[in-house]
Amino acid sequence: MNYPCGIKIDRKKTISYGNRGMSLEKELNETNNYYLLKNIAVIHKKPTPITIKKVDYISPTRVKIKDGYFQKPSTTDYNGIYRGQYIDFEAKETNKPNYFPLSNIHKHQLEHLKKIITHGGIGFLIVSFNAYNEIFYLDGKDLFDFINTNTRKSIPYSYFQEKGHLIKIKFNPRLDYLKIIDEIYFKGEYYEEKY
Amino acid sequence: MNYPCGIKIDRKKTISYGNRGMSLEKELNETNNYYLLKNIAVIHKKPTPITIKKVDYISPTRVKIKDGYFQKPSTTDYNGIYRGQYIDFEAKETNKPNYFPLSNIHKHQLEHLKKIITHGGIGFLIVSFNAYNEIFYLDGKDLFDFINTNTRKSIPYSYFQEKGHLIKIKFNPRLDYLKIIDEIYFKGEYYEEKY
Repeated sequence: MNYPCGIKIDRKKTISYGNRGMSLEKELNETNNYYLLKNIAVIHKKPTPITIKKVDYISPTRVKIKDGYFQKPSTTDYNGIYRGQYIDFEAKETNKPNYFPLSNIHKHQLEHLKKIITHGGIGFLIVSFNAYNEIFYLDGKDLFDFINTNTRKSIPYSYFQEKGHLIKIKFNPRLDYLKIIDEIYFKGEYYEEKY
Repeated sequence: MNYPCGIKIDRKKTISYGNRGMSLEKELNETNNYYLLKNIAVIHKKPTPITIKKVDYISPTRVKIKDGYFQKPSTTDYNGIYRGQYIDFEAKETNKPNYFPLSNIHKHQLEHLKKIITHGGIGFLIVSFNAYNEIFYLDGKDLFDFINTNTRKSIPYSYFQEKGHLIKIKFNPRLDYLKIIDEIYFKGEYYEEKY
Protein backbone atom coordinates (compact mmCIF):
# COMPACT_ATOMS: atom_id res chain seq x y z
CA MET A 1 0.00 0.00 0.00
CA ASN A 2 1.47 3.31 -1.08
CA TYR A 3 0.90 6.63 0.64
CA PRO A 4 1.83 10.07 -0.71
CA CYS A 5 5.17 11.57 0.28
CA GLY A 6 6.86 8.29 -0.59
CA ILE A 7 5.76 6.70 2.68
CA LYS A 8 5.12 3.00 2.49
CA ILE A 9 3.63 0.94 5.27
CA ASP A 10 4.07 -2.77 5.56
CA ARG A 11 1.36 -3.79 8.00
CA LYS A 12 2.81 -7.19 8.72
CA LYS A 13 6.30 -6.40 9.72
CA THR A 14 7.81 -3.03 10.28
CA ILE A 15 7.55 0.40 8.78
CA SER A 16 9.52 1.59 5.81
CA TYR A 17 9.29 5.13 4.55
CA GLY A 18 11.10 7.69 2.54
CA ASN A 19 11.05 5.42 -0.47
CA ARG A 20 8.46 3.51 -2.49
CA GLY A 21 9.44 0.04 -1.51
CA MET A 22 11.84 -1.37 0.99
CA SER A 23 14.10 -3.39 -1.23
CA LEU A 24 15.94 -0.57 -3.00
CA GLU A 25 16.43 1.27 0.29
CA LYS A 26 17.61 -1.90 1.98
CA GLU A 27 20.03 -2.72 -0.83
CA LEU A 28 21.43 0.81 -0.76
CA ASN A 29 21.81 0.69 3.01
CA GLU A 30 23.72 -2.57 2.70
CA THR A 31 25.86 -1.11 -0.07
CA ASN A 32 26.63 2.00 1.98
CA ASN A 33 27.41 -0.18 4.96
CA TYR A 34 29.88 -2.12 2.82
CA TYR A 35 31.52 1.13 1.67
CA LEU A 36 31.77 2.25 5.28
CA LEU A 37 33.26 -1.02 6.57
CA LYS A 38 35.77 -1.15 3.72
CA ASN A 39 36.69 2.50 4.27
CA ILE A 40 35.71 3.41 0.71
CA ALA A 41 33.16 6.13 1.42
CA VAL A 42 31.01 7.56 4.22
CA ILE A 43 27.47 7.76 2.86
CA HIS A 44 24.37 7.54 5.04
CA LYS A 45 20.62 7.66 4.61
CA LYS A 46 19.12 10.56 6.50
CA PRO A 47 16.35 9.80 8.96
CA THR A 48 12.85 10.71 7.79
CA PRO A 49 11.80 14.02 9.32
CA ILE A 50 8.93 13.75 11.78
CA THR A 51 6.76 16.36 13.45
CA ILE A 52 6.15 15.44 17.06
CA LYS A 53 2.91 16.53 18.67
CA LYS A 54 2.81 14.66 21.96
CA VAL A 55 5.19 12.69 24.16
CA ASP A 56 5.01 10.59 27.30
CA TYR A 57 7.71 10.65 29.96
CA ILE A 58 8.20 6.95 30.64
CA SER A 59 11.28 7.48 32.77
CA PRO A 60 14.08 10.05 32.98
CA THR A 61 15.91 8.06 30.30
CA ARG A 62 13.00 7.22 28.05
CA VAL A 63 10.63 9.48 26.14
CA LYS A 64 7.80 7.90 24.17
CA ILE A 65 6.36 9.62 21.13
CA LYS A 66 2.56 9.36 21.39
CA ASP A 67 1.58 11.53 18.46
CA GLY A 68 3.65 12.40 15.44
CA TYR A 69 3.49 12.70 11.68
CA PHE A 70 5.87 12.24 8.77
CA GLN A 71 7.06 15.45 7.15
CA LYS A 72 7.86 15.99 3.52
CA PRO A 73 11.64 15.88 3.19
CA SER A 74 13.25 19.11 2.01
CA THR A 75 16.51 17.46 1.01
CA THR A 76 17.42 14.17 -0.61
CA ASP A 77 17.64 10.97 1.39
CA TYR A 78 21.32 10.14 0.99
CA ASN A 79 24.52 12.13 1.31
CA GLY A 80 28.12 11.75 2.29
CA ILE A 81 31.71 11.88 1.11
CA TYR A 82 33.63 9.84 -1.47
CA ARG A 83 37.22 10.54 -2.59
CA GLY A 84 36.97 13.93 -0.92
CA GLN A 85 33.86 14.81 -2.94
CA TYR A 86 30.43 15.65 -1.59
CA ILE A 87 27.89 13.01 -2.72
CA ASP A 88 24.12 13.57 -2.70
CA PHE A 89 21.33 11.50 -4.19
CA GLU A 90 17.75 10.40 -4.10
CA ALA A 91 16.63 6.82 -4.72
CA LYS A 92 13.23 5.84 -6.08
CA GLU A 93 11.44 2.80 -7.38
CA THR A 94 8.82 2.80 -10.09
CA ASN A 95 6.46 0.07 -11.24
CA LYS A 96 5.80 1.86 -14.53
CA PRO A 97 7.56 0.01 -17.33
CA ASN A 98 7.85 2.93 -19.74
CA TYR A 99 8.64 5.98 -17.67
CA PHE A 100 9.66 7.41 -14.29
CA PRO A 101 7.12 9.99 -13.03
CA LEU A 102 8.90 13.13 -11.84
CA SER A 103 6.11 13.56 -9.28
CA ASN A 104 7.88 10.78 -7.35
CA ILE A 105 10.45 13.38 -6.34
CA HIS A 106 9.39 16.43 -4.35
CA LYS A 107 10.05 19.83 -5.88
CA HIS A 108 12.21 20.76 -2.86
CA GLN A 109 14.35 17.69 -3.41
CA LEU A 110 14.96 18.60 -7.06
CA GLU A 111 15.87 22.16 -6.04
CA HIS A 112 18.22 20.75 -3.42
CA LEU A 113 19.95 18.49 -5.98
CA LYS A 114 20.35 21.43 -8.35
CA LYS A 115 21.99 23.51 -5.59
CA ILE A 116 24.38 20.66 -4.77
CA ILE A 117 25.57 20.53 -8.37
CA THR A 118 25.96 24.34 -8.46
CA HIS A 119 28.16 24.12 -5.37
CA GLY A 120 30.41 21.50 -6.94
CA GLY A 121 28.94 18.34 -5.44
CA ILE A 122 28.12 15.08 -7.19
CA GLY A 123 24.33 14.80 -7.35
CA PHE A 124 22.31 12.06 -8.99
CA LEU A 125 19.26 9.80 -8.93
CA ILE A 126 19.09 6.06 -8.48
CA VAL A 127 15.91 4.73 -10.09
CA SER A 128 14.73 1.15 -9.98
CA PHE A 129 12.45 0.03 -12.82
CA ASN A 130 10.79 -2.83 -11.01
CA ALA A 131 9.18 -4.12 -14.20
CA TYR A 132 12.62 -5.14 -15.49
CA ASN A 133 14.49 -5.40 -12.20
CA GLU A 134 16.86 -2.77 -13.61
CA ILE A 135 18.42 -0.07 -11.46
CA PHE A 136 19.83 3.01 -13.13
CA TYR A 137 22.20 5.76 -12.03
CA LEU A 138 21.14 9.04 -13.67
CA ASP A 139 23.63 11.82 -13.22
CA GLY A 140 22.25 15.15 -12.02
CA LYS A 141 23.47 16.93 -15.14
CA ASP A 142 21.49 14.55 -17.36
CA LEU A 143 18.49 14.83 -15.05
CA PHE A 144 18.43 18.63 -15.31
CA ASP A 145 19.23 18.52 -19.03
CA PHE A 146 16.03 16.53 -19.41
CA ILE A 147 13.95 18.78 -17.15
CA ASN A 148 15.22 21.94 -18.85
CA THR A 149 14.53 20.73 -22.38
CA ASN A 150 11.27 18.85 -21.87
CA THR A 151 7.81 19.81 -20.73
CA ARG A 152 6.67 16.28 -19.90
CA LYS A 153 6.28 15.29 -16.29
CA SER A 154 8.01 11.95 -16.57
CA ILE A 155 11.34 10.67 -17.83
CA PRO A 156 10.95 7.87 -20.38
CA TYR A 157 12.65 4.54 -19.79
CA SER A 158 14.51 5.06 -23.08
CA TYR A 159 16.21 8.14 -21.60
CA PHE A 160 17.59 6.01 -18.77
CA GLN A 161 18.81 3.49 -21.36
CA GLU A 162 20.45 6.28 -23.35
CA LYS A 163 21.87 8.58 -20.65
CA GLY A 164 21.66 6.52 -17.48
CA HIS A 165 24.07 3.89 -16.26
CA LEU A 166 22.82 0.45 -15.38
CA ILE A 167 23.96 -0.57 -11.89
CA LYS A 168 24.99 -4.21 -11.73
CA ILE A 169 23.35 -6.14 -8.90
CA LYS A 170 26.10 -8.08 -7.17
CA PHE A 171 26.48 -10.08 -4.02
CA ASN A 172 28.57 -7.50 -2.16
CA PRO A 173 28.37 -4.56 -2.53
CA ARG A 174 24.80 -5.05 -3.74
CA LEU A 175 24.55 -1.92 -5.90
CA ASP A 176 28.04 -0.69 -6.61
CA TYR A 177 27.07 2.82 -7.76
CA LEU A 178 30.46 4.31 -6.82
CA LYS A 179 31.94 2.42 -9.78
CA ILE A 180 29.75 4.59 -12.01
CA ILE A 181 30.96 7.73 -10.24
CA ASP A 182 34.50 6.48 -10.87
CA GLU A 183 33.69 6.27 -14.58
CA ILE A 184 32.04 9.68 -14.84
CA TYR A 185 34.12 11.73 -12.39
CA PHE A 186 37.39 9.87 -11.94
CA LYS A 187 38.29 8.76 -15.47
CA GLY A 188 37.35 5.18 -14.78
CA GLU A 189 39.99 4.75 -12.11
CA TYR A 190 38.10 2.42 -9.82
CA TYR A 191 38.36 2.68 -6.09
CA GLU A 192 40.49 0.29 -4.14
CA GLU A 193 39.42 -1.16 -0.84
CA LYS A 194 41.42 0.28 2.02
CA TYR A 195 41.55 -1.83 5.12
CA MET B 1 14.94 19.00 32.05
CA ASN B 2 17.70 17.06 30.35
CA TYR B 3 17.45 13.49 29.14
CA PRO B 4 20.29 11.25 27.98
CA CYS B 5 21.10 11.10 24.27
CA GLY B 6 21.05 14.89 24.08
CA ILE B 7 17.26 14.98 24.08
CA LYS B 8 15.70 17.98 25.74
CA ILE B 9 12.03 18.41 26.33
CA ASP B 10 10.38 21.76 26.82
CA ARG B 11 7.01 20.89 28.32
CA LYS B 12 5.47 24.25 27.67
CA LYS B 13 6.02 24.76 24.02
CA THR B 14 7.43 22.25 21.61
CA ILE B 15 10.07 19.58 21.60
CA SER B 16 13.69 20.16 20.88
CA TYR B 17 16.15 17.32 20.66
CA GLY B 18 19.51 16.36 19.27
CA ASN B 19 21.16 19.08 21.30
CA ARG B 20 21.30 20.22 24.88
CA GLY B 21 19.39 23.41 24.56
CA MET B 22 17.42 24.95 21.75
CA SER B 23 19.23 28.20 21.32
CA LEU B 24 22.45 26.98 19.72
CA GLU B 25 20.52 24.69 17.41
CA LYS B 26 18.13 27.49 16.51
CA GLU B 27 20.94 29.92 15.82
CA LEU B 28 22.74 27.38 13.65
CA ASN B 29 19.55 26.64 11.73
CA GLU B 30 19.08 30.35 11.09
CA THR B 31 22.70 30.67 10.05
CA ASN B 32 22.41 27.72 7.67
CA ASN B 33 19.19 29.15 6.31
CA TYR B 34 21.01 32.41 5.62
CA TYR B 35 23.80 30.54 3.82
CA LEU B 36 21.21 28.69 1.76
CA LEU B 37 19.24 31.79 0.80
CA LYS B 38 22.38 33.71 -0.14
CA ASN B 39 23.66 30.74 -2.13
CA ILE B 40 26.81 30.51 0.00
CA ALA B 41 26.54 26.90 1.16
CA VAL B 42 24.05 24.03 1.45
CA ILE B 43 24.24 22.78 5.02
CA HIS B 44 21.33 21.13 6.84
CA LYS B 45 20.63 19.63 10.21
CA LYS B 46 19.70 15.99 9.92
CA PRO B 47 16.41 14.86 11.43
CA THR B 48 16.72 12.96 14.71
CA PRO B 49 16.42 9.24 14.07
CA ILE B 50 13.30 7.66 15.54
CA THR B 51 12.26 4.04 15.97
CA ILE B 52 8.59 3.64 15.18
CA LYS B 53 6.66 0.92 16.96
CA LYS B 54 3.03 1.61 16.13
CA VAL B 55 1.08 3.73 13.66
CA ASP B 56 -2.55 4.64 13.01
CA TYR B 57 -3.99 4.96 9.51
CA ILE B 58 -5.93 8.20 9.80
CA SER B 59 -6.61 8.41 6.08
CA PRO B 60 -4.90 7.24 2.89
CA THR B 61 -2.83 10.43 3.00
CA ARG B 62 -2.13 10.59 6.72
CA VAL B 63 -0.29 8.20 9.00
CA LYS B 64 -0.11 8.95 12.70
CA ILE B 65 2.78 7.70 14.79
CA LYS B 66 1.29 6.31 18.00
CA ASP B 67 4.39 4.80 19.55
CA GLY B 68 8.00 5.72 18.86
CA TYR B 69 11.31 6.38 20.53
CA PHE B 70 14.34 8.54 19.88
CA GLN B 71 17.42 6.66 18.70
CA LYS B 72 21.02 7.48 19.44
CA PRO B 73 22.42 9.20 16.36
CA SER B 74 25.26 7.33 14.62
CA THR B 75 26.45 10.36 12.68
CA THR B 76 26.79 14.04 13.46
CA ASP B 77 23.83 16.38 13.26
CA TYR B 78 24.96 18.70 10.48
CA ASN B 79 26.45 18.17 7.06
CA GLY B 80 26.53 19.71 3.63
CA ILE B 81 28.69 21.37 1.01
CA TYR B 82 30.68 24.61 0.98
CA ARG B 83 33.01 25.74 -1.81
CA GLY B 84 32.86 22.25 -3.22
CA GLN B 85 34.02 20.76 0.10
CA TYR B 86 32.17 18.28 2.25
CA ILE B 87 31.33 19.85 5.63
CA ASP B 88 30.39 17.84 8.73
CA PHE B 89 29.99 18.92 12.33
CA GLU B 90 28.38 18.39 15.69
CA ALA B 91 27.13 21.26 17.87
CA LYS B 92 26.89 21.11 21.64
CA GLU B 93 26.23 23.39 24.57
CA THR B 94 27.80 23.07 27.99
CA ASN B 95 26.99 24.80 31.24
CA LYS B 96 30.35 23.87 32.75
CA PRO B 97 32.56 26.93 32.89
CA ASN B 98 35.92 25.15 32.88
CA TYR B 99 35.58 22.25 30.51
CA PHE B 100 33.55 20.50 27.83
CA PRO B 101 32.75 16.88 28.78
CA LEU B 102 33.53 14.53 25.91
CA SER B 103 30.66 12.34 27.09
CA ASN B 104 28.38 14.97 25.51
CA ILE B 105 29.30 13.47 22.14
CA HIS B 106 28.51 9.83 21.39
CA LYS B 107 31.39 7.55 20.56
CA HIS B 108 29.82 6.79 17.16
CA GLN B 109 29.71 10.48 16.38
CA LEU B 110 33.41 10.91 17.15
CA GLU B 111 34.25 7.90 14.98
CA HIS B 112 32.13 9.38 12.22
CA LEU B 113 33.95 12.74 12.42
CA LYS B 114 37.29 10.98 12.29
CA LYS B 115 36.27 9.06 9.15
CA ILE B 116 35.12 12.29 7.50
CA ILE B 117 38.52 13.86 8.03
CA THR B 118 40.27 10.72 6.72
CA HIS B 119 38.17 10.97 3.55
CA GLY B 120 39.14 14.59 2.99
CA GLY B 121 36.14 16.35 4.47
CA ILE B 122 36.08 19.35 6.79
CA GLY B 123 34.95 18.12 10.20
CA PHE B 124 34.66 20.13 13.39
CA LEU B 125 32.78 20.85 16.59
CA ILE B 126 30.83 23.94 17.56
CA VAL B 127 30.73 24.25 21.34
CA SER B 128 28.82 26.85 23.27
CA PHE B 129 30.14 27.70 26.74
CA ASN B 130 26.91 29.03 28.17
CA ALA B 131 28.67 30.38 31.27
CA TYR B 132 30.43 33.00 29.12
CA ASN B 133 28.02 33.08 26.17
CA GLU B 134 31.00 32.12 24.03
CA ILE B 135 30.72 29.82 21.04
CA PHE B 136 33.84 28.14 19.70
CA TYR B 137 34.71 26.41 16.46
CA LEU B 138 37.12 23.55 17.20
CA ASP B 139 38.63 22.01 14.10
CA GLY B 140 38.52 18.22 13.88
CA LYS B 141 42.29 18.01 13.69
CA ASP B 142 42.65 19.87 16.99
CA LEU B 143 39.86 17.79 18.52
CA PHE B 144 41.61 14.52 17.66
CA ASP B 145 45.03 15.94 18.57
CA PHE B 146 43.58 16.48 22.04
CA ILE B 147 41.91 13.07 22.27
CA ASN B 148 45.03 11.28 21.04
CA THR B 149 47.39 13.00 23.47
CA ASN B 150 45.20 13.17 26.59
CA THR B 151 43.56 10.63 28.80
CA ARG B 152 41.10 13.02 30.41
CA LYS B 153 37.45 12.77 29.46
CA SER B 154 36.87 16.49 28.99
CA ILE B 155 38.44 19.28 27.00
CA PRO B 156 39.39 22.26 29.17
CA TYR B 157 38.04 25.69 28.33
CA SER B 158 41.64 26.87 27.99
CA TYR B 159 42.15 24.46 25.07
CA PHE B 160 39.25 26.14 23.25
CA GLN B 161 40.83 29.52 23.95
CA GLU B 162 44.18 28.30 22.64
CA LYS B 163 43.22 26.13 19.65
CA GLY B 164 39.57 26.98 19.04
CA HIS B 165 38.17 29.94 17.13
CA LEU B 166 35.63 32.19 18.76
CA ILE B 167 32.54 32.62 16.56
CA LYS B 168 31.24 36.17 16.59
CA ILE B 169 27.53 36.44 17.32
CA LYS B 170 26.08 38.78 14.72
CA PHE B 171 22.65 39.84 13.60
CA ASN B 172 22.74 37.93 10.31
CA PRO B 173 24.18 35.38 9.85
CA ARG B 174 23.95 34.68 13.58
CA LEU B 175 27.00 32.43 13.87
CA ASP B 176 29.17 32.95 10.83
CA TYR B 177 31.28 29.80 11.22
CA LEU B 178 32.09 29.61 7.50
CA LYS B 179 34.34 32.64 7.98
CA ILE B 180 36.50 30.47 10.25
CA ILE B 181 36.59 27.73 7.61
CA ASP B 182 37.70 30.43 5.15
CA GLU B 183 40.58 31.28 7.50
CA ILE B 184 41.67 27.70 8.11
CA TYR B 185 41.03 26.09 4.72
CA PHE B 186 40.86 28.93 2.18
CA LYS B 187 43.74 31.21 3.22
CA GLY B 188 41.40 33.79 4.69
CA GLU B 189 39.71 34.50 1.37
CA TYR B 190 36.23 35.16 2.66
CA TYR B 191 33.18 34.02 0.76
CA GLU B 192 31.18 36.47 -1.28
CA GLU B 193 27.43 36.39 -1.34
CA LYS B 194 26.14 35.16 -4.67
CA TYR B 195 22.62 36.22 -5.50
